Amino acid sequence: MVRVTVWNEYRHEREDDNVAELYPEGIHAALADALEERGHDVRTATLDEDDEHGLSRDVLDETDVLLWWGHLAHDEVSDEIVDRVVEEVRDGMGFLPLHSAHYSKPFKRLMGTSCSLKWREAGERERLWTVEPGHPIAEGIDEQIVVPEAEMYGERFDIPQPDALVFVSWFEGGEVFRSGCCYRRGSGRIFYFRPGHEEYPIYEQEEIITVIDNAIEWATPTDGVEPNFSNVEAAEPIGEE
Amino acid sequence: MVRVTVWNEYRHEREDDNVAELYPEGIHAALADALEERGHDVRTATLDEDDEHGLSRDVLDETDVLLWWGHLAHDEVSDEIVDRVVEEVRDGMGFLPLHSAHYSKPFKRLMGTSCSLKWREAGERERLWTVEPGHPIAEGIDEQIVVPEAEMYGERFDIPQPDALVFVSWFEGGEVFRSGCCYRRGSGRIFYFRPGHEEYPIYEQEEIITVIDNAIEWATPTDGVEPNFSNVEAAEPIGEE
Amino acid sequence: MVRVTVWNEYRHEREDDNVAELYPEGIHAALADALEERGHDVRTATLDEDDEHGLSRDVLDETDVLLWWGHLAHDEVSDEIVDRVVEEVRDGMGFLPLHSAHYSKPFKRLMGTSCSLKWREAGERERLWTVEPGHPIAEGIDEQIVVPEAEMYGERFDIPQPDALVFVSWFEGGEVFRSGCCYRRGSGRIFYFRPGHEEYPIYEQEEIITVIDNAIEWATPTDGVEPNFSNVEAAEPIGEE
Amino acid sequence: MVRVTVWNEYRHEREDDNVAELYPEGIHAALADALEERGHDVRTATLDEDDEHGLSRDVLDETDVLLWWGHLAHDEVSDEIVDRVVEEVRDGMGFLPLHSAHYSKPFKRLMGTSCSLKWREAGERERLWTVEPGHPIAEGIDEQIVVPEAEMYGERFDIPQPDALVFVSWFEGGEVFRSGCCYRRGSGRIFYFRPGHEEYPIYEQEEIITVIDNAIEWATPTDGVEPNFSNVEAAEPIGEE
Repeated sequence: MVRVTVWNEYRHEREDDNVAELYPEGIHAALADALEERGHDVRTATLDEDDEHGLSRDVLDETDVLLWWGHLAHDEVSDEIVDRVVEEVRDGMGFLPLHSAHYSKPFKRLMGTSCSLKWREAGERERLWTVEPGHPIAEGIDEQIVVPEAEMYGERFDIPQPDALVFVSWFEGGEVFRSGCCYRRGSGRIFYFRPGHEEYPIYEQEEIITVIDNAIEWATPTDGVEPNFSNVEAAEPIGEE
Repeated sequence: MVRVTVWNEYRHEREDDNVAELYPEGIHAALADALEERGHDVRTATLDEDDEHGLSRDVLDETDVLLWWGHLAHDEVSDEIVDRVVEEVRDGMGFLPLHSAHYSKPFKRLMGTSCSLKWREAGERERLWTVEPGHPIAEGIDEQIVVPEAEMYGERFDIPQPDALVFVSWFEGGEVFRSGCCYRRGSGRIFYFRPGHEEYPIYEQEEIITVIDNAIEWATPTDGVEPNFSNVEAAEPIGEE
Repeated sequence: MVRVTVWNEYRHEREDDNVAELYPEGIHAALADALEERGHDVRTATLDEDDEHGLSRDVLDETDVLLWWGHLAHDEVSDEIVDRVVEEVRDGMGFLPLHSAHYSKPFKRLMGTSCSLKWREAGERERLWTVEPGHPIAEGIDEQIVVPEAEMYGERFDIPQPDALVFVSWFEGGEVFRSGCCYRRGSGRIFYFRPGHEEYPIYEQEEIITVIDNAIEWATPTDGVEPNFSNVEAAEPIGEE
Repeated sequence: MVRVTVWNEYRHEREDDNVAELYPEGIHAALADALEERGHDVRTATLDEDDEHGLSRDVLDETDVLLWWGHLAHDEVSDEIVDRVVEEVRDGMGFLPLHSAHYSKPFKRLMGTSCSLKWREAGERERLWTVEPGHPIAEGIDEQIVVPEAEMYGERFDIPQPDALVFVSWFEGGEVFRSGCCYRRGSGRIFYFRPGHEEYPIYEQEEIITVIDNAIEWATPTDGVEPNFSNVEAAEPIGEE
């Protein structure tokens, strides 16, 4: 069982009636339920939970893969916790920033870019095309996922070139977007996945959960050697001609 | 001055009145004219020109970058000439397969994949989004190029992951496509560029020519060392402990 | 259980006493034994086994991951079987070319390059450094694997840029080599792994088998959609302004 | 003429007699001289020059490509100037961190990783192998560059997977290193180049200057569109079925 922590800012759901109706217990709870059904060992954490945003060292030590949803309050996440999350990813923890988490502090820190994009809220249709059907994150996914109503995110998405690009979105209003992007940073694996606006029941779509489920499996750390970053002796003779 | 050879199958233009009207001297001639205006040293070659399809060793020796347009008669290109082109690319010649040349023998040979895709001829609008505005092939290009009427090519496009992905297309009918893809194979650089259906005046669009012009500059060979593929002596002592 | 087929040319072992002593039943048998111990469902196939080199359609249909060892007789592998193997890889079968299989027909076909390199047989020390400790193929592997005696392969290795580079070799005589290279081609995953000269007991090294074991897990096909390569109807309206 | 700024920490040269003997005017002056001879328009800047480390907005506005050498005093570079440099790179300025600048603040910020490595100071021989002879940064470079005496840097080098890997180093003492790594971040191009320890006359080696010269050409910004990161109107109709 993969130990998953779903982190959520959890503000929209408490401030906006429409969102509360969709996700009465919060987006984190909806995701946790869906992922527990898929057999994962899931806990949740939220921004206002305690002075560590629910991400104590103990919680992170027991986390294989961390999901991150945030939007209104990226700046309220303390730099100390961001440092901690970034460090954990580099040490191997999987990291799945979802939707508006493109602008979260940990993702921006791990990417080294602005992670900016263009956007529009018009409830338009999105089609996520499976660009790499052979990738494990695309397992069980059809050639496209149709999201009936979505916020648009459009290119230029200011990210480093992904190590693998799994999904590309089409939007009714005329834009495209690299919606499923894999990275390795340090020993950790990162998958940015675009869908998930708070005003539409996107995390109730079976295929969306399947992608997240696949991404959790893909991002689960494997037991690699801890890198040796030190001054070392030579194993081979130096100075022979 | 970059020495460019524009290769064209040159069948549609001679067999179909609509195409002949658009490209009376052939697509190769239209491209050659446009690229000469941009300051390149351009020659053309066509499938039925001679028993080497206009691609004698002398012609290829004097070619820095080869453009390739083909559609109806990929199979009529002799394997000997394909071997020759592939060899030249590996030795450093730039190669720009255009549009339906995704299915040309040299491109398929250099990619190692089927290069298949889905398609539709409905004269629909295409928007090529500039995914990498900092790439030299995007120099002078706006955030999108709108092609008013295009044949659709849709993902899954069965290619190896590009070394760089510069353009992604949006189509009116609902599909997306990786439309500008960079590769290095051997010492040669390859840029696949999607636009260019024979029934629309796409090669008369200024931005399309700009992209091709940029790609020619990018693909022009630089003077790298010829790899040494042989049995070699050791430069360092072997057998010391 | 992953269904593994180990293909071996099986000539050195029958023609050269030194090799026969190391691998009396052939390299394929040694690999099969080691991989069965790791829990895989392994069968073997060899060049001279039957007129299909042991790679009938039935065998390939029941193969998740194909290992390939060849050296002296690459040219004797029939093009029909090569076509079949390449097709299977594109359809999702994992493919692990080992050592001198860099020059095998299926690998060259899937890469689109010459796959040439420089070499030396001097029984020198090789150190495979783990460049990506977080990659699943490096699971359980230390920061380096030392092969006491190896044939040298040196750069320039004429391959496409790997999708991921997991190991880089150091050689006593002064060369380096990209020794563990991941690719996706079609829906299949490919891992080229350098170690394995026939004159040294390299496939008896535990770490070497661990890498191959990991690569088998990594290359096992996942159940992705079969791409739709056809003329399609538009899902969205065309012709609106 | 490319406008190059060579930034140097300039401490070793003022604090250590051996270094002062090699680079009496500083590493920046030696590089500036060599690059001026190659036809570039070069200025220099140093850490202690003024309260902006010589990197005022005006200087950066007039810089196409910034070289960076630092070692002892990475932490003394003010975060404000680091922000400024990172911003300029994202806006297109080329950036060439040299040698120990792997640990400079701007490089670490742009990579998002620790950029750690292992090392040894033993004056050992280094061989930089040209892994991509067809890359423009390898123009005019032989299959290897031999540095007679070098500080060793060894893998695991904790960087994101490079967009292109041009050189890999071999070290006498048994290690390897990815010594020439290309990245795009925002609209800017970055080339990390390893050689350059302050105690050896490495920047007097002609081939080393050739690589830097090539990298400057490669990293010079091209005139791409400034990305539009805003809330946008739809260009296509929304809400049709």
